[in-house]
Amino acid sequence: MRLRLDLSYDGSAFHGWAIQPGLRTVQGELEAAIATVLRLDARAALTVAGRTDTGVHARGQVAHVDLDDVDPAVLARRLRRLLPTDVVVRSVSAAPEGFNARFSALERRYVYRFCDGVPDPLTRNAVVATARPLDVAAMNAAADHLLGEHDFASFCRRREGATTIRTLRELSSVRVGGIIEITVRADAFCHSMVRSLMGALVAVGEGRCEPRWAGEIVAAQARDPRITVMPAHGLTLEEVIYPPDHLVAVRAEEARRRRDEP
Amino acid sequence: MRLRLDLSYDGSAFHGWAIQPGLRTVQGELEAAIATVLRLDARAALTVAGRTDTGVHARGQVAHVDLDDVDPAVLARRLRRLLPTDVVVRSVSAAPEGFNARFSALERRYVYRFCDGVPDPLTRNAVVATARPLDVAAMNAAADHLLGEHDFASFCRRREGATTIRTLRELSSVRVGGIIEITVRADAFCHSMVRSLMGALVAVGEGRCEPRWAGEIVAAQARDPRITVMPAHGLTLEEVIYPPDHLVAVRAEEARRRRDEP
Repeated sequence: MRLRLDLSYDGSAFHGWAIQPGLRTVQGELEAAIATVLRLDARAALTVAGRTDTGVHARGQVAHVDLDDVDPAVLARRLRRLLPTDVVVRSVSAAPEGFNARFSALERRYVYRFCDGVPDPLTRNAVVATARPLDVAAMNAAADHLLGEHDFASFCRRREGATTIRTLRELSSVRVGGIIEITVRADAFCHSMVRSLMGALVAVGEGRCEPRWAGEIVAAQARDPRITVMPAHGLTLEEVIYPPDHLVAVRAEEARRRRDEP
Repeated sequence: MRLRLDLSYDGSAFHGWAIQPGLRTVQGELEAAIATVLRLDARAALTVAGRTDTGVHARGQVAHVDLDDVDPAVLARRLRRLLPTDVVVRSVSAAPEGFNARFSALERRYVYRFCDGVPDPLTRNAVVATARPLDVAAMNAAADHLLGEHDFASFCRRREGATTIRTLRELSSVRVGGIIEITVRADAFCHSMVRSLMGALVAVGEGRCEPRWAGEIVAAQARDPRITVMPAHGLTLEEVIYPPDHLVAVRAEEARRRRDEP
């Protein structure tokens, strides 16, 4: 029986999602808690939609796990009682036929948060202060050069045999109170891509680069020293979007094929 | 020269506002930082608008301090650089004639935050989870019995020679996303009064007491075991309201007189 887990976590005290020996990770905490609750001899392996780096948060993370004879609601309640307060199991449900938390996803939505005024100490774990005021209109002009399908090699750590072509569906900045919220949506992201995109937007927002420079960076397909990988703690995985239940298997097939293209 | 300091802090790692030997307090950190920046031999004593308890937060705290030959903007910048990230000096300005951070205040506005659904780990330091869903309409009906001038002895720790008569100007609950925000405004509060009021509202919101019970509690002028003092970390001092500059001295006079009444 495949279960879907919807999760939130404060990434501050985790060495990211992926399990690592001797380090506190979200996957490690969750798999240990599931093993305790169900009295399993071996850990039940979780598959996740977005493998978040150290310090990155999530409000809408999704994972799946295969388990026998489990009442989803009971498991959710027991996990909530057992887990520390920085990771919350929002819900556990029976996954539709063919569902895969990673490959069935149509889209990941992240939000990065900057503050360019006086910082609020109550949100400092999830908001990054900038040195100068941000020009949100200029950031949105720069984003226009980045939207759509591109080879994002300039924004990624290259991995042998994997494509860096991605489709960026949204990259929009908006000022909400004292916070600049930048929403990023894509089918998938390469490693460090979102935080590098943020580095490019901040360079434009602070007036160090012109908006059209963002287009030149993509076209160059090579890292530019003016792009900083922005700090992890400004980033939150807000949502993973899946197709309707009868299409999750088809989508998983398709994504698996595309991800293997060189 | 009297300076007004506008402050925010995350109260989680502080033993409240007031300086105490051997404990980390907001006043202690700030006075030490001011002494360092200005190379003072003795600490310059701060007077604060709302002496917050251990764990209580502030976004709109106000304090004053008397110092000679200081540029307010320079002091603000240096303090910001020196202070830890959980306390932020929003601004420093020259106070108007006769200003007293405590006695010139017309009103303090606090917000208490509850979550009655799945908690968000990213805001867990400032939001309190309830055991049951809250009926916001019932809480507002209860609040109607508490508004206005009353002897709030039932909600206060009594202090020898001090009055427990206060004027409650607002006590309103509203659901914002998954959070129930309760705004409380009054000229001043007795010790533990806001958190006791929250305990009464939660008893009503969870359906353990009828709204009119809140009126009976006030009238009884004695503590009721059904009122819990709610946890400190749900409470944030959001704002201190002062009269126009030419009235701050008059207001300070008046408040000082009233506070001394038995």
